[in-house]
Amino acid sequence: MDQQIIQDLVLTELNIIKTDGGDVLHGMKKSDPGFISFGEAYFSTVTKNSIKAWKRHHKMTMNLIVPSGEIGFGIFDDREESESFGKFSTIVLSQSNYFRLTVPPMLWLGFKGLSKDLSYLLNIADIAHDPNEVDHLDLNEIDYDWSYLK
Amino acid sequence: MDQQIIQDLVLTELNIIKTDGGDVLHGMKKSDPGFISFGEAYFSTVTKNSIKAWKRHHKMTMNLIVPSGEIGFGIFDDREESESFGKFSTIVLSQSNYFRLTVPPMLWLGFKGLSKDLSYLLNIADIAHDPNEVDHLDLNEIDYDWSYLK
Repeated sequence: MDQQIIQDLVLTELNIIKTDGGDVLHGMKKSDPGFISFGEAYFSTVTKNSIKAWKRHHKMTMNLIVPSGEIGFGIFDDREESESFGKFSTIVLSQSNYFRLTVPPMLWLGFKGLSKDLSYLLNIADIAHDPNEVDHLDLNEIDYDWSYLK
Repeated sequence: MDQQIIQDLVLTELNIIKTDGGDVLHGMKKSDPGFISFGEAYFSTVTKNSIKAWKRHHKMTMNLIVPSGEIGFGIFDDREESESFGKFSTIVLSQSNYFRLTVPPMLWLGFKGLSKDLSYLLNIADIAHDPNEVDHLDLNEIDYDWSYLK
């Protein structure tokens, strides 16, 4: 994985505890890096090769976890004051690469389903969903090559 | 479903919003019934016909959501002051019966995987995991017929 990730993105490795008849997969504790406050937790599902892009939150910090399936994330930084201004990050999450991805406000995020089965994304967000703090761009309005994610 | 559930158990119907390429599944907002505070969110997985039982928390309120698969819950109330003292509740959760189950402290809980594919349980808990506040009993120490759940 490219470790030269965008400024302020945080990847935190999570534990999977094997037990008989099923596992325990850590998500987030209030004492963890990336936790600010609790606003809402919700799932997004994505089918293989579907792309959901682009969104930018003005206020929300997202904490993204993929408990099932595999999802590729494209993140674009157009924050003029950022050290990574103009750069992209590509991150793939699954149980095989089980990290929590913390995305601060003002980064553009999109994601693509990579597994044959439906993929599940949990967002533990510091504020509840508010359409007034979300910007949208169409897929082609940011020049990112989604074909690398497969 | 049996609506004569144990005192203080709360079932809250959740929305699934259909969108192209995948859905959005609501989980919990801080303004929702059952939310006390945020301590930890974690997943448990359970294979078909595996039973994980019994546990009782002294402090934790659990908010249980099944985004994938199907899980049957057995809950036993041995709180002497309870109106439902000595009673059991049986609740099945899945995307087809998409509810959040809020379980207050001091109830005995077990669960069984019912779907062919692995089932996923998200617990949004008001405190972080603490083994000192959890009691355990072996499966057979509470007389509950798990064969009804299939």
